[in-house]
Amino acid sequence: MKLVTYKINDTTHQLGFIKDDVIINAEQLGQLKNNALPATMLEFIDLGKEGIEKATTLIATATTEELKKCSVSLAGAKLMAPIPKPRKNIIGIGLNYTEHVAESARTLDTSKDLPQQPVIFSKPPTAVTGTGENIVHNQDITKQLDYEVELAVIVSKRGKNVPKKDAMDYVYGYSVINDISARDCRRSGQWIVSKGQDTFAPMGPILVTADEVADPHNLNLSLKLNGEERQNSNTKFMLFNINDLINDISTVFTIEAGDIIATGTPAGVGAGRNPQAFMWPGDIVEATVEGIGTITNTIVDSKDI
Amino acid sequence: MKLVTYKINDTTHQLGFIKDDVIINAEQLGQLKNNALPATMLEFIDLGKEGIEKATTLIATATTEELKKCSVSLAGAKLMAPIPKPRKNIIGIGLNYTEHVAESARTLDTSKDLPQQPVIFSKPPTAVTGTGENIVHNQDITKQLDYEVELAVIVSKRGKNVPKKDAMDYVYGYSVINDISARDCRRSGQWIVSKGQDTFAPMGPILVTADEVADPHNLNLSLKLNGEERQNSNTKFMLFNINDLINDISTVFTIEAGDIIATGTPAGVGAGRNPQAFMWPGDIVEATVEGIGTITNTIVDSKDI
Repeated sequence: MKLVTYKINDTTHQLGFIKDDVIINAEQLGQLKNNALPATMLEFIDLGKEGIEKATTLIATATTEELKKCSVSLAGAKLMAPIPKPRKNIIGIGLNYTEHVAESARTLDTSKDLPQQPVIFSKPPTAVTGTGENIVHNQDITKQLDYEVELAVIVSKRGKNVPKKDAMDYVYGYSVINDISARDCRRSGQWIVSKGQDTFAPMGPILVTADEVADPHNLNLSLKLNGEERQNSNTKFMLFNINDLINDISTVFTIEAGDIIATGTPAGVGAGRNPQAFMWPGDIVEATVEGIGTITNTIVDSKDI
Repeated sequence: MKLVTYKINDTTHQLGFIKDDVIINAEQLGQLKNNALPATMLEFIDLGKEGIEKATTLIATATTEELKKCSVSLAGAKLMAPIPKPRKNIIGIGLNYTEHVAESARTLDTSKDLPQQPVIFSKPPTAVTGTGENIVHNQDITKQLDYEVELAVIVSKRGKNVPKKDAMDYVYGYSVINDISARDCRRSGQWIVSKGQDTFAPMGPILVTADEVADPHNLNLSLKLNGEERQNSNTKFMLFNINDLINDISTVFTIEAGDIIATGTPAGVGAGRNPQAFMWPGDIVEATVEGIGTITNTIVDSKDI
């Protein structure tokens, strides 16, 4: 399924299913069919595959008239981040594509050696924003605002010490994250201030459930800044693939339904260019993952909001 | 007020108020007085000072008979972490006491210079555990399990760019955290795997609201390992005090009600001793902050659970 969190005008955000050019409201569909569906993405993820199957059946058995009653046009809806307020910090993975390890070592202070284990950091829930929203540039804090297109993996259920071979059972679906980074905001080497500022995790535009992604390890991902392509690679080049990551992360932390793993970015970031080229107010950044979609955001000066 | 999250046998955890040697159940008190109080700590924190005032009034106006109906003996209750499941990662502060900066530079890879800005990291909600619970030592991952007693500050309300002079308005109360750290688990310098493993954030035993702490910048804090004192200092020696921290953190992230700030540890950690002395299964660690209490935890081997 293609899932969205959306709102119409100033309504509370709602869970919806995309079908052609409309969004079917989950809660309203459940009410119409006398078979309750939750109103929010996290509650729906908590239902796991059963939720997906139930919703699929309700849509398939609904009459055209019923569907019309609980649908809005996709064009008229405001899409938000699929999970607008995660239950914990986003689990970020650094240095997970070879060429990006190399460019980081040239221009930042990271090692030129490939990491032997996934490099983990976090981004607070307050960093999450949706497509079409602004990325806030606080020039009192940073002059090195950078982009990073990434495949986001959404976790389906609680797990600890998940074997690599079982890891895909723990994947609910996928989305796109632009892992915004203020390169000059590291403190004692820690990345959270660099990567965790408000609006530094644009996510979306939709969440595609795992059953609709034939091979998550063969998806093109790319990024444009003001229309110019800056990143273009494929998830097959991850150093630690999704199985590796879920195995490793669940060995150190218990993973839970709704957890978001940002799986790392390929080469082409602004810090890695010669000369370096960062983002400034007015810039438009578009991050795309094949089969999921594009999130588009505009950089704004914090003084202008 | 002195607030606890507790359970009796296998009941769901409940919010309670400590009065002498009993716990008054918040939800039951509200029902008895026909004036609803929430069942959980986070919901109560969301009510802010009004919640505290309301509960104080309800307790003051309750008859002995009414209080008896909604109370249990403190001795018979199982105290949990005051916030058993935070809404985001704990905001940790590193290198916030001078002598600890020095011992870390001697024995870890951190700078000997005092940090110019707070050093921020995070610990996931899954790391939180309560007093009396086990700290899990996974010897496949670490041979350098260490302790760090810290004053925990709980945030009262949403804020951004909070001025230092107003920072105390954003403090709901205080607790104790033992910031457990596996020193050999840093990855590309990042601390989250080192500090974020399951059970690495024992917290409690209670939450003391800000009105009951005369001066949070003058509290002794100490830690014993197997009965031997290892840390003993005072919060007055913080490099960045609570006002500084709330100002700084809220400049980079929006802070929210229920956020937990672990304000850093003084000298005396195992990594800083000569020879280094870490924790092993069977060890008992007690972390104390004056006016709040002591959290006691036992180290267990992950293979034994």
